[in-house]
Amino acid sequence: MKVRDGNDLKTFFEPESVAVFGSLRDGMGLGYGTIRNMLDFGFKGRVYPVNHNYSEVLGLKAYAAVSEIAEPIDLAVVITPAPTVPEIIDQCAQKGVKAAVIVSEHFAEAGEKGARLQQQLVDIARRTGIRIMGPNTIGTLNTANGLVTTPYLLGYDSIQKGGIAYCSQSGIVAAQCQPLEDRAYPISKMCDLANKCDVNEVDILNYLADDPETKVVAMHMEDVRDGHGFMDAARKLTARKPLLIFRPARSEAGARASASHTGSLAGNDEVYDSVIKQVGAIRVHTWQEFWEIPRIFAQQRQIGGNRLAIIAYSGGAGVVAADAAAEAGLALANFAPATLDRLRRIDPRAARNPIDLGPILSAAADTVFVQDEAIAAILEDDNVDCASIALYVGVLAPVQYIDELLERLMENISKPVTIWLYGTKLSVLEETSRRLEARGLPAFTELEMAVKALGVLAHYSRFRSNLEHDAA
Amino acid sequence: MKVRDGNDLKTFFEPESVAVFGSLRDGMGLGYGTIRNMLDFGFKGRVYPVNHNYSEVLGLKAYAAVSEIAEPIDLAVVITPAPTVPEIIDQCAQKGVKAAVIVSEHFAEAGEKGARLQQQLVDIARRTGIRIMGPNTIGTLNTANGLVTTPYLLGYDSIQKGGIAYCSQSGIVAAQCQPLEDRAYPISKMCDLANKCDVNEVDILNYLADDPETKVVAMHMEDVRDGHGFMDAARKLTARKPLLIFRPARSEAGARASASHTGSLAGNDEVYDSVIKQVGAIRVHTWQEFWEIPRIFAQQRQIGGNRLAIIAYSGGAGVVAADAAAEAGLALANFAPATLDRLRRIDPRAARNPIDLGPILSAAADTVFVQDEAIAAILEDDNVDCASIALYVGVLAPVQYIDELLERLMENISKPVTIWLYGTKLSVLEETSRRLEARGLPAFTELEMAVKALGVLAHYSRFRSNLEHDAA
Repeated sequence: MKVRDGNDLKTFFEPESVAVFGSLRDGMGLGYGTIRNMLDFGFKGRVYPVNHNYSEVLGLKAYAAVSEIAEPIDLAVVITPAPTVPEIIDQCAQKGVKAAVIVSEHFAEAGEKGARLQQQLVDIARRTGIRIMGPNTIGTLNTANGLVTTPYLLGYDSIQKGGIAYCSQSGIVAAQCQPLEDRAYPISKMCDLANKCDVNEVDILNYLADDPETKVVAMHMEDVRDGHGFMDAARKLTARKPLLIFRPARSEAGARASASHTGSLAGNDEVYDSVIKQVGAIRVHTWQEFWEIPRIFAQQRQIGGNRLAIIAYSGGAGVVAADAAAEAGLALANFAPATLDRLRRIDPRAARNPIDLGPILSAAADTVFVQDEAIAAILEDDNVDCASIALYVGVLAPVQYIDELLERLMENISKPVTIWLYGTKLSVLEETSRRLEARGLPAFTELEMAVKALGVLAHYSRFRSNLEHDAA
Repeated sequence: MKVRDGNDLKTFFEPESVAVFGSLRDGMGLGYGTIRNMLDFGFKGRVYPVNHNYSEVLGLKAYAAVSEIAEPIDLAVVITPAPTVPEIIDQCAQKGVKAAVIVSEHFAEAGEKGARLQQQLVDIARRTGIRIMGPNTIGTLNTANGLVTTPYLLGYDSIQKGGIAYCSQSGIVAAQCQPLEDRAYPISKMCDLANKCDVNEVDILNYLADDPETKVVAMHMEDVRDGHGFMDAARKLTARKPLLIFRPARSEAGARASASHTGSLAGNDEVYDSVIKQVGAIRVHTWQEFWEIPRIFAQQRQIGGNRLAIIAYSGGAGVVAADAAAEAGLALANFAPATLDRLRRIDPRAARNPIDLGPILSAAADTVFVQDEAIAAILEDDNVDCASIALYVGVLAPVQYIDELLERLMENISKPVTIWLYGTKLSVLEETSRRLEARGLPAFTELEMAVKALGVLAHYSRFRSNLEHDAA
């Protein structure tokens, strides 16, 4: 058996050359889809279609077999019928291919016959040293070089680059399942570990811990194959960057459903919960939290404490935010006397937390001053660690207005701030959210999420500061 | 003091004539905004701007005072500075105006001076019988006749008509705060009770209980002024239609924030929780649940039990749905032997719940048959009470495909079904969601919400069936 280290995974995300095995049928074939997605993304490496029925696809020469390619190949993406896969992997290994993403289905997840095929893959990997992701996976995505192994046509020109690595044990956490072009998720890497016949959660955690582009890891997992390895790798990662874990199969019904598709017993949820806490990871509980919460870490800002200031445009929204703060372990900041004076000079009603700017703005002669001054006052208060600010985007507060407001404020924002964006047009909300994200301000369209994200940031900051204290 | 009954509120939603008091400044004035919104909505009644600085606005003759209008006026919408409001309301009462929506701020919510002004309004209402909503309110909206009193320019041509009445105690639950043209919320009425100087939650519950267009009431409330009246009205309503209550101010911080903007102590959350249960209402816990969950009731379909069938396109999504089912009080249905046989004939792997159609579809010769047959099989099973079905909308499954799929299936769907919609383009997801809603199928873009909504439906159906049992 060949020796492996965490750096092996580099080839899955940073290959210089990729061979794609699969149907090249125009518009429909999954090999075609993979290649088309890579071309749309502007993949920086070389792509080699392998299919003996074609001589050319999408302007690329096609090869009858991997052995016919003269240049070295780093990564193979295999989307052919399951029985053909072991032979292909064997040929790849002989050619010196370092890694293979096996998108093909009908392996261990599909019963005994598939499990035997999967075992053949494991044997080849052990014998030759080729690393395998999957089978039954959507594979990898890397925004830095435009690599994407998703076989379903995405229709994206690009995905926002950033610091979040989403990794999963299911094709449901993948580029084809979220409107990634519309949404402001700043992504570094994505990957689906799927059947985990070789590459597993330990490998990916080790790789992402070292990946300079990844500032936070959001991991969906149902089961862990190597408990001790997982704990070591997770501890190593959380000492450097936050790890958020979405682990479904919490309920008995969920655990049964998990066992039937992963082929392994998911295990007791309390054990997972305890392990997640022990390694310093943070558990998120819903599909939406899994996607949204990591955005708070994309900028890697630390937080000094848990005292939150809230600016809303409505008393009612302030109450909802205050509830969310309590649930997220945040305290409402008590403003310093000087801050309260400063707020009173704007309007006597502003001198509280949450601040309801709605009626104050509607009575104000200079709304720009009111908004800027209120935000500056709370962020300059030493009693405030972070803030959640509502912004309304509508006919009377167009994107340009919000943009200018933020332009002025970004200079003064030295503390973590989240924005709750609301208004009348979804497309405008999403556009504004992307613009704010590009400035380093995570904006959420769900009120409570904007507060909850700060709670998670405070939680991780406390963990880091305890770690540093212990080390000192 | 004049005698009032629940029917008084009819004028707030179904006026034949509306006088609007406020600034008519082009594009910016709040009176202008209200009138413009009503014109955009195609309000079916007559609109009379009242402002002595104008002779005409938006093609409508403006009047210097309400007394100058020759025709009778049902409803006044008042958006003038607070000190001018009592005089206007008095003139309206003298003119015979039946109801007034007072949008103006700076009343009881703004301190003692405002409270004295508000008391003047109460005195006028008691003396003359004119009913008052607010002050400090966004007022009402009625999709049946195009009435909208929102003073902020919405830019909507229309809002989807349907069975949901959203009512609130805050301007945050209003037409300007949600992308109502984009989202598939089928709405009957909206209203903001705000300061509740006269019209309160008892009045609105009585009105909505009798409103034939309203199939479900979603109520945001922070405090209740008349506890016994509320319980009676809520019981009367829940015997006819579901009542969902979003009550923030759960936490101490939230309760303090609530007290500071409503001017009344919010009271102990456990008391509210117990009252909500006693009256047969259902509590929702987040901003998003408040907006999304009522959609399950818009079609008023009853449910026979709590046995759920799940169809997903991915094992991972099935696990998340199974967890959500357990949390929502739903059991995963055990399919009947005949159903299991029918599913096995599609593919041996289909004979389980959740069904993961993903790998089956990818291997199927006739994907349309697989999808139709799987859905028909589970819905025709007597062991199944309801189903949650995932649908992917993307380059390979365009809206037209989904539409045709649903076209075929709608004939066979006799049980409550929700759709989880996912894919790569937000605008396509929203368009599909609106199309499905128009067919009576609530589609959710958040996985867990599609399951949770069925749980709430099962909960209310059980409550109704117990009521009927008790009555028999």
